Amino acid sequence: MKQDQKSLTPRSTSQSDWYTEVITRAKLADYSPVRGCMVIRPYGYAIWERIQAEMDKRIKALGVQNAYFPVFIPYSFLQREADHVEGFAPEVALVTHVGDKELEEKLVVRPTSETIIYEMFKDWIQSYRDLPLKVNQWCNIVRWEKRTTPFLRTTEFLWQEGHTAHATREEADEMVKAGLDMYAAFAEEFLAIYSIKGRKTEAEKFAGAEYTTTFECMMKDKKALQSGTSHLLGQGFAKAFDVQYLGEDGDKHYAWTTSWGLSTRIIGAIILMHGDDKGLVLPPMIAPTQALIVPIFKAENKDAVAEYISKVEASLKQQGIRYEVDWSENSPGWKFSEGEMRGIPLRIEVGSKDMDAGVVTVVKRTDSQKQQVQLSDLESTLPNLLETIQTEIYESAKKFTNENIIEVSTYEEFKELVNKTDEAVGFVKTYFCGDKDVEAQIKEETKYTSRCVPLETYDQEGKCFITGKPGKLTIFGKAY
Amino acid sequence: MKQDQKSLTPRSTSQSDWYTEVITRAKLADYSPVRGCMVIRPYGYAIWERIQAEMDKRIKALGVQNAYFPVFIPYSFLQREADHVEGFAPEVALVTHVGDKELEEKLVVRPTSETIIYEMFKDWIQSYRDLPLKVNQWCNIVRWEKRTTPFLRTTEFLWQEGHTAHATREEADEMVKAGLDMYAAFAEEFLAIYSIKGRKTEAEKFAGAEYTTTFECMMKDKKALQSGTSHLLGQGFAKAFDVQYLGEDGDKHYAWTTSWGLSTRIIGAIILMHGDDKGLVLPPMIAPTQALIVPIFKAENKDAVAEYISKVEASLKQQGIRYEVDWSENSPGWKFSEGEMRGIPLRIEVGSKDMDAGVVTVVKRTDSQKQQVQLSDLESTLPNLLETIQTEIYESAKKFTNENIIEVSTYEEFKELVNKTDEAVGFVKTYFCGDKDVEAQIKEETKYTSRCVPLETYDQEGKCFITGKPGKLTIFGKAY
Repeated sequence: MKQDQKSLTPRSTSQSDWYTEVITRAKLADYSPVRGCMVIRPYGYAIWERIQAEMDKRIKALGVQNAYFPVFIPYSFLQREADHVEGFAPEVALVTHVGDKELEEKLVVRPTSETIIYEMFKDWIQSYRDLPLKVNQWCNIVRWEKRTTPFLRTTEFLWQEGHTAHATREEADEMVKAGLDMYAAFAEEFLAIYSIKGRKTEAEKFAGAEYTTTFECMMKDKKALQSGTSHLLGQGFAKAFDVQYLGEDGDKHYAWTTSWGLSTRIIGAIILMHGDDKGLVLPPMIAPTQALIVPIFKAENKDAVAEYISKVEASLKQQGIRYEVDWSENSPGWKFSEGEMRGIPLRIEVGSKDMDAGVVTVVKRTDSQKQQVQLSDLESTLPNLLETIQTEIYESAKKFTNENIIEVSTYEEFKELVNKTDEAVGFVKTYFCGDKDVEAQIKEETKYTSRCVPLETYDQEGKCFITGKPGKLTIFGKAY
Repeated sequence: MKQDQKSLTPRSTSQSDWYTEVITRAKLADYSPVRGCMVIRPYGYAIWERIQAEMDKRIKALGVQNAYFPVFIPYSFLQREADHVEGFAPEVALVTHVGDKELEEKLVVRPTSETIIYEMFKDWIQSYRDLPLKVNQWCNIVRWEKRTTPFLRTTEFLWQEGHTAHATREEADEMVKAGLDMYAAFAEEFLAIYSIKGRKTEAEKFAGAEYTTTFECMMKDKKALQSGTSHLLGQGFAKAFDVQYLGEDGDKHYAWTTSWGLSTRIIGAIILMHGDDKGLVLPPMIAPTQALIVPIFKAENKDAVAEYISKVEASLKQQGIRYEVDWSENSPGWKFSEGEMRGIPLRIEVGSKDMDAGVVTVVKRTDSQKQQVQLSDLESTLPNLLETIQTEIYESAKKFTNENIIEVSTYEEFKELVNKTDEAVGFVKTYFCGDKDVEAQIKEETKYTSRCVPLETYDQEGKCFITGKPGKLTIFGKAY
């Protein structure tokens, strides 16, 4: 079916128009009639399914088992951990009625599941033999956000949340690290996402955590996106929910707990980190369709083209390459644009000239580079090409991020730099004391927030760029 | 860890005590602090994951794509289809507030997603080229039930719901059939569930459907369990949500829609259809653990047993058999009971006598039949044994069901039969006119409801056992 195919708003004209146009035109998601909730369409959901399948393997490899906990949480549970209720209370959706009957206690639609999970852990954990206890759930989450953007910040989103209990703080620390490392490795290897692992400051940590670790990514507009977090909850929730175990020493101890989550927001990161003015750019590992075959034919040679393409398909199938053939009535040019909009890594054109030469024309999504490939060479060429594209996308993201990290040493320098433009300037690196009030002042005056204290240089100390107190090398950025 | 291991309440003493004990002691699920909501524990969730993986393949093979729609539905949407709102309004959970702010329109936590999905279909479907449109979602569902039982009837449950739109009624009819056939074949081949496919009467059909098809199963207590349904929604929802397409004839037409769902209730069917007085009995295809290796050792020969078992493990791994080894401090007897409680199809005992003879002792969960198997014969024996168990479980369920279908021809006979006992007598088969009021009278007087009009004998007609009007051969049963 012919559709309107006017060109995308360029990223340089309007980042946000570009973003929402890519999402709707690549059919990743659609706005729903419910405020702030999106519909994830089949193409977007196929990406999420691939993320789930791969992450689920990695989560299980950490000795974690999947389970499912109720979507509703009694309101009183939220109140048991003081920071937690303060952080979440304003944005929780409340079920107050069933049919026309009012409930005795209002129920929260889960904004995260620590409270209901630790209430169960209390029963499941008796002695040190029951530890560590590691569970994960894939589920929907509801947080009423003031402004919403598809994938990045929606009233409802999908995620996984891991929750573990341990006998010692050291083991819990290790789990927090294992969770974060798993995320960052997955993002790098699968999604070609370059990220910086670090710790959140006090102002930015999870409500109820002792500390929060994060992996932060720079988008192509130089803004920062927090893409997954792993928290040490310490013994706070264990005390609030009475999660105690009988130790080998015969005494009762509170367990140490962790939680870590990654959501459909990561799809936003893929779009914003890799996309270009033609649309989405999908790394081959995550692309639901890795190759789009476009037949170029007339009525009189359609059968011959189809027969030739069946040979190409046989080869792709054998190599396990995910592909589509677009036999629709649209023009080849329309199909090229559509494949680019959808971020399909390879386009394979098959026309009469190709057939005469016994080749196909293969075009890379990333740089439009064309090459003729003999049918007999498809097997040696295509997998390498996909691997090359995967690497190129990652290296380009890495280079871009590193080119846009700017170090400053005084607040004056910082303000001059970031006030030069309304756009984001990238990641600004400087020593910072981590004080909550000082951070509030920075945010107020510059709109920049601390993104993380990178783990790589965590032990480095210097004078805070504002207070002069001892500080850690910290990255600031304009956050999504 | 030693646990209390008193024996189960026998099924013959109390079906419901037996059922809830199996669920908690096999750690399938746990009661949650939220009324009517259960926690699905890792062992229960592993069963659901296997169900999802297999069903997802079969759903995709029908040309259906996964997507995700919001958990919240505006209340007004429910009201657009008259039967639908009447059926669901009393049992819907309503979100009325966010934090301390009241919402302008209250939101329903989805009890099923027809309304929100067809609201989107309206935009996605323009012309006949967009049809058929087939989507499915895996999600959580909330229906406030008066009395709840884990898996069978819970306030929140997990399911998949398929929703399709077609150009013609014939195509929609075929989809309804394909959905039901897929369910019944999956249940038979994977879950060893014997079922009877049929149509629901007017009184029992889905609220908003033109007709509902179902596959009904008889549990070991002779009660009936509706395990999955597939509905022809006709054009009712399409009219309510203005889902129209431009036909090849240049005119606008309303689409024909279907929906079909299968939920975590099916896990209840597995428990109730196959379980015995030792606990759960899992068909090998669905069992998360197919073989439990129990080492029988003393301190002095533990290493030798471990080495011997590593050979057994190597063989199981190679055969792709899912297994566990129980190295805990519990006694072998305790481990045997635990494996039986969890329904693990095979137990493999390894003690010093076995080692001396170069064998292992293999015990079938279904009939406790023991056999010695040479290490070198494991590969030729175990897969066959698992297949045999799968078949035996299915054949036994089939036999039991067919032995407990009783045909009657008058209402007096019917009442005499079912009033003899408080227990269920099985499926009662008779010609029934399908009248709603007459069915209400039967339910009132006998507690039996129509389960379905079996498809196999759908065209057979006879005199209704009550009214004498033309009737169809209908199955009645006591429902869960």
